[in-house]
Amino acid sequence: MYQDRGLKIRTLHVRDIRFPTSLELHGSDAMHVDCDYSCAYVTVYTEGDVEGHGLTFTIGRGNEIVVAAVKSLSPLVVGQDAGQIFNDFAGFWRKLTNDSQLRWVGPEKGVIHLATAAIINALWDLWAKLQQKPLWKLLVDMEPEQLVSTIDFRYISDAVTKQEAIAMLKAMQEGKEEREERMIRIGYPAYTTQAGWLGYSNEQVKALCSKYLAKGFTAFKVKVGQNLEDDLCRCAMVREIIGWDNKLMVDANQVWDTEQAIEWMKQLAEFKPLWIEEPTFPDDVLGHATISKALKPLGIGVATGEMCCNRVMFKQFLQAGAMQYCQIDSCRIGGVNEVLSVYFMAKKLGVPVCPHAGGVGLCEMVQHLQIFDYICLTGTTEGRMIEFADQQHEHFENSIHVLHAHYIAPKMPGYSTALKAESAEAYEYPNGSKWEEMFAKGLFPDPRKQNVFVCQAN
Amino acid sequence: MYQDRGLKIRTLHVRDIRFPTSLELHGSDAMHVDCDYSCAYVTVYTEGDVEGHGLTFTIGRGNEIVVAAVKSLSPLVVGQDAGQIFNDFAGFWRKLTNDSQLRWVGPEKGVIHLATAAIINALWDLWAKLQQKPLWKLLVDMEPEQLVSTIDFRYISDAVTKQEAIAMLKAMQEGKEEREERMIRIGYPAYTTQAGWLGYSNEQVKALCSKYLAKGFTAFKVKVGQNLEDDLCRCAMVREIIGWDNKLMVDANQVWDTEQAIEWMKQLAEFKPLWIEEPTFPDDVLGHATISKALKPLGIGVATGEMCCNRVMFKQFLQAGAMQYCQIDSCRIGGVNEVLSVYFMAKKLGVPVCPHAGGVGLCEMVQHLQIFDYICLTGTTEGRMIEFADQQHEHFENSIHVLHAHYIAPKMPGYSTALKAESAEAYEYPNGSKWEEMFAKGLFPDPRKQNVFVCQAN
Repeated sequence: MYQDRGLKIRTLHVRDIRFPTSLELHGSDAMHVDCDYSCAYVTVYTEGDVEGHGLTFTIGRGNEIVVAAVKSLSPLVVGQDAGQIFNDFAGFWRKLTNDSQLRWVGPEKGVIHLATAAIINALWDLWAKLQQKPLWKLLVDMEPEQLVSTIDFRYISDAVTKQEAIAMLKAMQEGKEEREERMIRIGYPAYTTQAGWLGYSNEQVKALCSKYLAKGFTAFKVKVGQNLEDDLCRCAMVREIIGWDNKLMVDANQVWDTEQAIEWMKQLAEFKPLWIEEPTFPDDVLGHATISKALKPLGIGVATGEMCCNRVMFKQFLQAGAMQYCQIDSCRIGGVNEVLSVYFMAKKLGVPVCPHAGGVGLCEMVQHLQIFDYICLTGTTEGRMIEFADQQHEHFENSIHVLHAHYIAPKMPGYSTALKAESAEAYEYPNGSKWEEMFAKGLFPDPRKQNVFVCQAN
Repeated sequence: MYQDRGLKIRTLHVRDIRFPTSLELHGSDAMHVDCDYSCAYVTVYTEGDVEGHGLTFTIGRGNEIVVAAVKSLSPLVVGQDAGQIFNDFAGFWRKLTNDSQLRWVGPEKGVIHLATAAIINALWDLWAKLQQKPLWKLLVDMEPEQLVSTIDFRYISDAVTKQEAIAMLKAMQEGKEEREERMIRIGYPAYTTQAGWLGYSNEQVKALCSKYLAKGFTAFKVKVGQNLEDDLCRCAMVREIIGWDNKLMVDANQVWDTEQAIEWMKQLAEFKPLWIEEPTFPDDVLGHATISKALKPLGIGVATGEMCCNRVMFKQFLQAGAMQYCQIDSCRIGGVNEVLSVYFMAKKLGVPVCPHAGGVGLCEMVQHLQIFDYICLTGTTEGRMIEFADQQHEHFENSIHVLHAHYIAPKMPGYSTALKAESAEAYEYPNGSKWEEMFAKGLFPDPRKQNVFVCQAN
């Protein structure tokens, strides 16, 4: 099927990249009060001099552990033939996620799966570049059988089979061209998280709501969960600015127990939130199902997924009616192959996908996936939006283009995952020039002087 | 409550210890075909010169990532006052598991949680040594309120509350002394996994079954799942030797999808296995519930837990009727504090706990926990056993004492987690003397010569 056989992966390089976002409380929520948006940044080099870039997002400390895990996985990748990988991508994916010793420290979750995502994302970027297409277009142009051949259906065959997935794609062939044209011209609807971080003052929130309203946004998400009085004030304030025709979503970032989530949300119901995001611990399928059931009469859905650790967890959330909005993440689970399996399960079980984005590179990546979903799988944007946060885009070579609150389909080949060389150099932790400056100014402690573990680039 | 305030934790040391068990296929199953039993070995040093040892078990590659994660967690421990930790152990546990940045690479699962377990286990070993008691006795002698104060009930309050846990302990005060005496004299029943590894020949399996039968064992576990014909032969062979009055359990180590598990086990039902262990992916609560329901009429229970990644997953397995035997592990979840929470939930929901053991140090640790369960919580060994595998015990300073297939309650202070100094030196990877010998003989490749990531001791 694929012809780039003979292109060997020469080496794999990983760097610890961190941006000092905690200085301005960007990204602060009830659980994560001081994020330094970071990524483990992977480059695969081929003998043909084409490079693939992939990354996984973290929020600072811990990034060094993911970097270490990428190094541990790297012998499974280096020396492999890229064409052979793409010809049996599901097989390669299983090899990477099911190494007979490494799987013990997962399996398929946490650090090792975040590292897997960065590598797999780099391989997809490479594939798209070899085909000289943006990733979404690579997916759209594949025959259904080829696309589905990239997915490992192990452990999800009770929710969706390979044959069903192929049939879903075949059933949507008609109208693909018009839908593609629409994505290029109008784009995919976005909502903003940018106005409602917990660390922002009321004045900041007001100003930002007005700003994004003026830019054409019609859906706004605010963080809640630290203090009920504050939440009531904040929601009232935001509703006052955005009105009642626009959408409001709230996000608790896992702070509540099941019963507490239900009680708290009853208090916020008067503001008519479309969804409550991450009401409790991300592994609690049954807890989310209980919350979903309790909030349904109030017209509030449950949204979750950014910390859902693999396709088996997504399967259960979808089967149990525990999520009404499925928030895939591009690098929490094992890269494009596994994310595709979640899209098929969500389609089968009738749950709209609204990707998690923001951080470092998440907007850049998920736009490709959601555009694929629209063109090839669901054919609708009804009840669906891509999260938008206006941060760290300046560091990417091909950053997102959001116009009138829509993500315009990217044109450049690849998965939009390449950092600018100067950004990667400046923000490499702890040796990059920007970090050296910040250590010198005393803005952050220098880990090298404190016997704090760092994992250097290889 | 606790008086050792003023005892500062001076430093924390972690080593990558590996034993070359793959050379003889010990530990081989359908998923893990070449285990090198390993551990991330943590020592906490106090200003009072008392040391605490803790470890987390892995099966080889990947151990270096856990070592890296211990190093990343270490600044949260070093410099702390041990007495203050023990006075609010639940608070410290949450601090360690919910660092506002590190939690992103979990939360509470995989590498970061395995690392947490090693540290927490070292602190419990320290506490028991300071009190000059074996860990089980430290737990048994605590007031119910103090014991329960070590547990973080966040996210499990819908299954069990702090008050309920205290009440459970108070209800079992009567008879504690007799039960304690019984554990010292007769001990806790064990079953053996030692006879049935997949890599063993039929002759090995036969000889081992006879050996353990002669030692008084009445319950035997064999590995299944790679090939149905082989499984039928193996089960028939084992039944022939052990007879039908003894117990047979089978373990698939996650190889099946839900439907496949049910079909396969129908074929093995004629051998009357007590349980099927790990029939499918360890995160699949709903899948295990389906399998449990289908196998109930055949008299076969579902056992799982060794890869259940935290108390929230255990909660759901127990709530959903997805496990009939709860196999806690001493270091997959966050150490003694979190394991205790699972014991309380299991008691509340009426599911017997049969701990996972074997590997490196697991037998040494779980005996303490299960003996506590018998003396303080359930008061029965009915339907309960501790797994036993006869490996790596020679490397521990205070290894287990199994007599007539019973674990005799340990007498030495601590959590039985201290490795002999000479073993730790010889098997430290990759610089230990035994590893140098094996590299020189060509038995294993030397990672230092192959640009394979290693994480050296600090």
